Amino acid sequence: MSVVNAEIIAIGNELLIGDVQDTNTAWLCARITGLGGVVRRATLIPDDRQIIAETLHAALARGTQLILTCGGLGPTDDDMTLASLAYALGLPLLESPEALAMLTESFQRFYRAGYTHNPDLTPERRKMAMLPAGGQPLANPVGAAPGVLLRHAGSVIVCFPGVPEELIGIFEGALGPLLRDLFGTGCYDEWVVEVRTGDESQLAPAVNRLQRDHPGVYVKSRARPYGATPRLKITLCARGDDCREVSRLLQAARQDLGAAVSALGIEIISG
Amino acid sequence: MSVVNAEIIAIGNELLIGDVQDTNTAWLCARITGLGGVVRRATLIPDDRQIIAETLHAALARGTQLILTCGGLGPTDDDMTLASLAYALGLPLLESPEALAMLTESFQRFYRAGYTHNPDLTPERRKMAMLPAGGQPLANPVGAAPGVLLRHAGSVIVCFPGVPEELIGIFEGALGPLLRDLFGTGCYDEWVVEVRTGDESQLAPAVNRLQRDHPGVYVKSRARPYGATPRLKITLCARGDDCREVSRLLQAARQDLGAAVSALGIEIISG
Repeated sequence: MSVVNAEIIAIGNELLIGDVQDTNTAWLCARITGLGGVVRRATLIPDDRQIIAETLHAALARGTQLILTCGGLGPTDDDMTLASLAYALGLPLLESPEALAMLTESFQRFYRAGYTHNPDLTPERRKMAMLPAGGQPLANPVGAAPGVLLRHAGSVIVCFPGVPEELIGIFEGALGPLLRDLFGTGCYDEWVVEVRTGDESQLAPAVNRLQRDHPGVYVKSRARPYGATPRLKITLCARGDDCREVSRLLQAARQDLGAAVSALGIEIISG
Repeated sequence: MSVVNAEIIAIGNELLIGDVQDTNTAWLCARITGLGGVVRRATLIPDDRQIIAETLHAALARGTQLILTCGGLGPTDDDMTLASLAYALGLPLLESPEALAMLTESFQRFYRAGYTHNPDLTPERRKMAMLPAGGQPLANPVGAAPGVLLRHAGSVIVCFPGVPEELIGIFEGALGPLLRDLFGTGCYDEWVVEVRTGDESQLAPAVNRLQRDHPGVYVKSRARPYGATPRLKITLCARGDDCREVSRLLQAARQDLGAAVSALGIEIISG
């Protein structure tokens, strides 16, 4: 069973002052998990060259196969993800003709649509075409800044803009073939069971036993605030190369869960 | 100017499979920033003793004054934040009589309210009173698991449950006096200006110049997807010991921003 491991690095001061809720990380986690991969860690850091470089080095040192960064690809000076990556990896920052062509096309499009008064590639716009040497631009179907794909020492690094719609557009679009290549036929599936109790501690012995009896399935019960709707979610999930085996593992765990919950006199609402 | 630096460690497999959107980090970032502190990093990691220990050690090694963890305080075996902390710091895990009293009171309350069939402190419930030696429990006004405050080598570590309502309840309640102590009279203020353009690159030269002219103010323009509502947010923020100085810095930057935006023929919508 060869599972691709991934890390996410979300970059932007606005995340750490609490001005923006980072939703990119959860979205990427769900997608990578759905493709059969494992996200091992996500880190939110400021727009700071040294910290970006250190965080990237740490992810590479952990042998991370897929490193996804979000944010810091825009036109202002505090957008410094690509320059920091180049610095971290000792690569020159070069103007990519392919990225420049994408930017030219984007700003012509924005100009025709009336979103900008001027379609010219000003220095601030050209900045978005400066990629670490070897970087491959990924077309941004929504905004201006292209994503970037860079292979380094056995790892794949993908840089996304921070605007969620743009990140999603690149992930679903230009990145598709790479993802199919990287993840192959890995399988992930999950089963969510809702039961009628608000008391996680009452279920805890059953959940603990279930986890011990089914080591190939990850079992998670989710607490809600006491006194809120008296229902509790239990998630069963499994991953592997063989989709039928994944499904078999989940069904066996679901059966034992049902028996344990019924034995406690707790009703199953759904799942 | 002595600014308290902080890091957040959000713990839970559910975050990394994308099953739950972590909102605790953004909430804590906003509150710490509002108190005059700086959140330097946030890390989302799985329920894994070794990874929790490594992440804590890394935060301590960076000289982090305030380390906030979220999640992993519940009754099931995969809730392992406190045991991992004890392991990381070489401390025994001891049953806290004070935490036990809080749990007794909570489960009596849940029993009276009909949220549980049984008010007894089962082994799974008692587990939530096992704290690293020296840990001080923080009353949870919403759920069962107390928060925990631990001082270690000049750093303050605070552990919150993962349920947002419980985290907020502990932060606003039991943690209040500590926070006032730690942050003293630090001041943070921000000014959000909305302008009528969807084109960040058009504004970029003015934003870059403003940042250079006002090094004490952090200037951030926020891109929206091209073609969405043609408006752009520019946030000015500053922090310091002296609230009047913070306010003066912001006013000066706001004035220059207004002049620069007007010179570009862009309308200011608000701020």
